[in-house]
Amino acid sequence: MYSQYVDDSYALHTDLYQVNMAQTYWQDEIHTRNAVFELFFRKLPFKNGYGVFAGLEKIIHYIQNFRFSDTDLQYLRDDLGFENDFLQYLSELRFTGNIRCMKEGELVFGNEPILRVEAPLGEAQIIETALLNIVNYQTLVATKASRIKQVIGNEAALEFGTRRAQEMEAAVWGARAAYIAGFDSTSNVRAGKLFGIPVSGTHAHSMIQAYKDEYKAFHEYASSHDDCVFLVDTYDTLRSGVPNAIRVAKELGDKINFKGIRLDSGDLAYLSKESRRMLDEAGFTETKIVASNDLDEYTIINLKSQGAEIDIWGIGTKLITAYDQPALGAVYKMVSIEDEQGNMVDTIKISSNPEKVTTPGLKRVYRIINRTNKHSEGDYITMDDENPENEERLKMFHPVHTFMSKFVTDFYAVDLHEDIFHEGKLLYNPPNMDEIRQFTQENLRLLWPEYKRALNPEEYPVDLSEKCWENKMKNIEEVKQKVDAMKK
Amino acid sequence: MYSQYVDDSYALHTDLYQVNMAQTYWQDEIHTRNAVFELFFRKLPFKNGYGVFAGLEKIIHYIQNFRFSDTDLQYLRDDLGFENDFLQYLSELRFTGNIRCMKEGELVFGNEPILRVEAPLGEAQIIETALLNIVNYQTLVATKASRIKQVIGNEAALEFGTRRAQEMEAAVWGARAAYIAGFDSTSNVRAGKLFGIPVSGTHAHSMIQAYKDEYKAFHEYASSHDDCVFLVDTYDTLRSGVPNAIRVAKELGDKINFKGIRLDSGDLAYLSKESRRMLDEAGFTETKIVASNDLDEYTIINLKSQGAEIDIWGIGTKLITAYDQPALGAVYKMVSIEDEQGNMVDTIKISSNPEKVTTPGLKRVYRIINRTNKHSEGDYITMDDENPENEERLKMFHPVHTFMSKFVTDFYAVDLHEDIFHEGKLLYNPPNMDEIRQFTQENLRLLWPEYKRALNPEEYPVDLSEKCWENKMKNIEEVKQKVDAMKK
Repeated sequence: MYSQYVDDSYALHTDLYQVNMAQTYWQDEIHTRNAVFELFFRKLPFKNGYGVFAGLEKIIHYIQNFRFSDTDLQYLRDDLGFENDFLQYLSELRFTGNIRCMKEGELVFGNEPILRVEAPLGEAQIIETALLNIVNYQTLVATKASRIKQVIGNEAALEFGTRRAQEMEAAVWGARAAYIAGFDSTSNVRAGKLFGIPVSGTHAHSMIQAYKDEYKAFHEYASSHDDCVFLVDTYDTLRSGVPNAIRVAKELGDKINFKGIRLDSGDLAYLSKESRRMLDEAGFTETKIVASNDLDEYTIINLKSQGAEIDIWGIGTKLITAYDQPALGAVYKMVSIEDEQGNMVDTIKISSNPEKVTTPGLKRVYRIINRTNKHSEGDYITMDDENPENEERLKMFHPVHTFMSKFVTDFYAVDLHEDIFHEGKLLYNPPNMDEIRQFTQENLRLLWPEYKRALNPEEYPVDLSEKCWENKMKNIEEVKQKVDAMKK
Repeated sequence: MYSQYVDDSYALHTDLYQVNMAQTYWQDEIHTRNAVFELFFRKLPFKNGYGVFAGLEKIIHYIQNFRFSDTDLQYLRDDLGFENDFLQYLSELRFTGNIRCMKEGELVFGNEPILRVEAPLGEAQIIETALLNIVNYQTLVATKASRIKQVIGNEAALEFGTRRAQEMEAAVWGARAAYIAGFDSTSNVRAGKLFGIPVSGTHAHSMIQAYKDEYKAFHEYASSHDDCVFLVDTYDTLRSGVPNAIRVAKELGDKINFKGIRLDSGDLAYLSKESRRMLDEAGFTETKIVASNDLDEYTIINLKSQGAEIDIWGIGTKLITAYDQPALGAVYKMVSIEDEQGNMVDTIKISSNPEKVTTPGLKRVYRIINRTNKHSEGDYITMDDENPENEERLKMFHPVHTFMSKFVTDFYAVDLHEDIFHEGKLLYNPPNMDEIRQFTQENLRLLWPEYKRALNPEEYPVDLSEKCWENKMKNIEEVKQKVDAMKK
């Protein structure tokens, strides 16, 4: 009803400039030239020591369903004035290229390709925006969730953010990303339905208000649910909420499982300690205390340092919006293009900011793992035809401060990319949610603790092979000469 | 493919606790009692002096389509263990109540009801989460966009944020919210298709890379597009980009409309001034300069104060994620409930934080507009049966610091709510996008400039009628007595 056209495809979920460029490529007949783009971010968010990749599942869905619908084409023609010949090309467009990508739950760092597209130029260009939109958000939330979970430790972490999420899809995909990163459940029932992840939740303040009596409300809730977690702060936590919860639990005895109470406001350190004492004195030593109210990794560290008696952590706004840094800056850059003669040639984007200069060429990214101590030594980016597994002794050096180098022996190298699509066909069989979640934990075990701490982690090495580095320098030099030639 | 169940309804786009409470209400047979909830936020975001409401269009769509699908019910039964009798109730559930709500583009302030639901308790409870999810994001972005537009003034503002948006729906609904608030276009083509709002965009760095030659790339783009805005920072803005743009424009002459150049990196103040000089010297005095690169209201103020020669502003990440405050804290609180005898009784939620105590009862919100100076004096919240239009002389006083008061005469009062749904039927005929956008501008004209400035705006009065304030105090007293009685 809000739309003049049906919302029946995501092909137009792209920036207009992608369509404009596709038109130029098509008119100039270079739209079928093979192009390579890499997707990566430059800096880790939240000053965290690592990122957790998420988004592949939705990318697969997007790519498989990629086609311009009749209403898309009608809109482009009638409203934007694109011409029929070009629209004919778009109407036949499907994704026919290759995609290599990290698996979800993989740890990821700055300046390494998460995903690599090799495809006809027109296709590779149009899909850019949606890929970035998907990866940027899901990876951001997975990283934030992992960071919070590191601080929480073995206690349970519940995702509660839907009402504050940035529209509906952020709520469900954010819930999924949090689960990948180690959260135990979400409150969003649709996310549970779609992804098969656990859902949790009890009752709200409104239930107390509906009965106008906290004792009666708890009692009625307990009469209709076996597992009970009572929200105790509607009127007064220690004088009304906790005593009423205890009274109901005592009265109903074995008829219910008095699993917990939930604190959602006030001084959580003080209230949790007092509530714990009251519960213990009443004999409910196994009853857990759930806390929520704008929690994030910093408030959790702080509460723990005060000895708060909190067993279960409910995290909403700060997680689902990645509050302290609500955008990941992943970009999608062309690294190679077919020339008129059919040869692949490297391309580079220069910037006055050295960190923004891209690394040209078709590449791979390996994680170098020490066989002795079972921890990773760093990531190693090579040209496509290199394989560090063939080296006895690997020289790893910082790509900017090149004097910072080390030699690694007794290692194995894991290619971090999987073949997802080959010539448009899906090759990859995605794991289920619990496998992805477990994979994240396995990856975290490979990482030294220095990279995992929430405050001031060490910088994990992401290095270029010598061949890769030299190729980059050569490309920079070529552009410089071209610009200098213009000046004359 | 990512789901075991089809994603065919938004009824489960809610927190599990809503469903748990609905079960208690249903089992206790109070699910059909009439309940009133109000949706409001407490504090304006970004320290702005006003908010811009958006979200109603999607709420209407959500409410009209609200029903549990077969797969929803199957999931609740098979995966979550809900029982058939209760599921039978859910399967028949439709929204049968009343909704009054502000119009989109209305200015909104803290602690006033944006939306009011009167409905059977079970229905009113389950829709809470989705309503908050929708209003929180769309209102946040509309407010941020309006704030940025105030600083931009009459120059054009383009929304560019899709790639950094928090998943796909945030991109399109955020684009729409920005347009409501005064932005001129979006880059997201799907948003253009769905909402009929203007789209804009030219080309990216990758097009330059695809040709490996900036001059050739501009030339080919110009050969396939009449209107040209060239992105000039792929290699070197002043030494390569601007000269190549000028060369192509001169060569093609009247064949193209050399509308502008776009700067996307570097020192935008310096580069825009130098580019302006080069364009003017070449005779392209009408050619505009578009700037982008992590802009927000602060960087724009700063660039303007440096005399930057920027005509068009492209705003991405900072707008679409509401970067400096990515969540609005709107809540949905029960203010009245039908009792056993069928009478409506007020309800209140107490908090140790005085700002969090709710205002009980079925209410209305009026904007008090001075007939002489045509500006608004403040907003005035009354009980449902009051009408300030009946008063000659209105006493307005601060709801916390009650000594701060004024008398207003020669005013008219605008009821800010429209009847949207009545007994489940849609009464409201939504305006089109341009009408909404114009409505926002009209509303802004009613506001004194002191409330509109980006830095340290004055606090706009949102006052309670005496009847409303006294009723609140009475309700607080009742709860206090009840808690005191427990203590004994």
